[in-house]
Amino acid sequence: MRSPQSLRNGVGGETPTPSRSPRPTIPSPHDIRFQSTLSVHKLRRFNSLVLLFRVATFVFSLSSFVFMLTNSRSQPRWFDFDASRFVLAANGIVAVYSLVEMVASVWEITTGATLFPEVYQVWFDFGHDQVFAYLLLSADSAGSTLLKTLRDSDTCSNTSAFCVQSDISIALGFAGFLFLSLASLMSGFRVACFLIKGSRFHL
Amino acid sequence: MRSPQSLRNGVGGETPTPSRSPRPTIPSPHDIRFQSTLSVHKLRRFNSLVLLFRVATFVFSLSSFVFMLTNSRSQPRWFDFDASRFVLAANGIVAVYSLVEMVASVWEITTGATLFPEVYQVWFDFGHDQVFAYLLLSADSAGSTLLKTLRDSDTCSNTSAFCVQSDISIALGFAGFLFLSLASLMSGFRVACFLIKGSRFHL
Repeated sequence: MRSPQSLRNGVGGETPTPSRSPRPTIPSPHDIRFQSTLSVHKLRRFNSLVLLFRVATFVFSLSSFVFMLTNSRSQPRWFDFDASRFVLAANGIVAVYSLVEMVASVWEITTGATLFPEVYQVWFDFGHDQVFAYLLLSADSAGSTLLKTLRDSDTCSNTSAFCVQSDISIALGFAGFLFLSLASLMSGFRVACFLIKGSRFHL
Repeated sequence: MRSPQSLRNGVGGETPTPSRSPRPTIPSPHDIRFQSTLSVHKLRRFNSLVLLFRVATFVFSLSSFVFMLTNSRSQPRWFDFDASRFVLAANGIVAVYSLVEMVASVWEITTGATLFPEVYQVWFDFGHDQVFAYLLLSADSAGSTLLKTLRDSDTCSNTSAFCVQSDISIALGFAGFLFLSLASLMSGFRVACFLIKGSRFHL
């Protein structure tokens, strides 16, 4: 597996270069300018899509976090059950992480370079996306099983505010998971590009 | 995004070709032979690793399925709860899928070609790996939350056989999930190779 370090950036603001061939031929200057414009256009679209997924993940997981946190007016409160604590914690972690990734994404769109050195950035993004997507799904599954069990007993009929608000929180958490898993696909593609071509650009 | 269809196979038994450059230069026959031997060696290692993950997933999910299915001697049986039915179904589905993928993997190692046409095979593998990994994790999280709730009530103290056997089944399911997510990383890498280079080989 090749891993040339030639196209690594992180501090400087190099413009993205088109794909390199193993034995370089010499293209005309017109070719280079055309290729480069096309690449910049496609990369901007790719990065904008990633930013969109980040924003959606942030919005949904923050809403889920807030809904669960304010779920303490009626008798069974969110901190009475392990599963609802898990939902709260997972959504909080994902909201903070998405905020950081939004900053990194905006930085990359505006300056054209990654916030950290490229090799760390692509692995950091992909590793955290994968783990946090699994974390969020696991928390939401646990939460919905808890609610199912509470509904079978008579907890939900007595004080239905808790159950309704938990339902909303978990549904928002599932929406956050959906967008996080999409972002995870994109960052996984960037890691694969980095492994194959030595750069996060696929063009 | 380039997607040349030149290296697609599925019926024939072509040997893997080394990476192509946009404007082909003419290497010596010795170069080609050396490159080709190296590629075949590395690809065999990659495919063997995938097969290993498939076998491990199959063994663990089948064991989990059997443990849950035979969990009907004492009073609460596996079909009394939604979550344990979910665990049984998810592990059964993953066991069958892993068996199919094992056959496909052995076929690819022995003949050098994919079972289906390459474009379908890489997307089929990756799509199912992702979805089934999420399915299995969700089922196991639901199952462990159910057991936690049962332990808080007095169901587990009265008839502990059900709870112990469910614990084992869920633990085996988590092990299956671990190997399935590793297989999903490998098949995701093959999809990225296919998108970037037009072939599932990264060499």
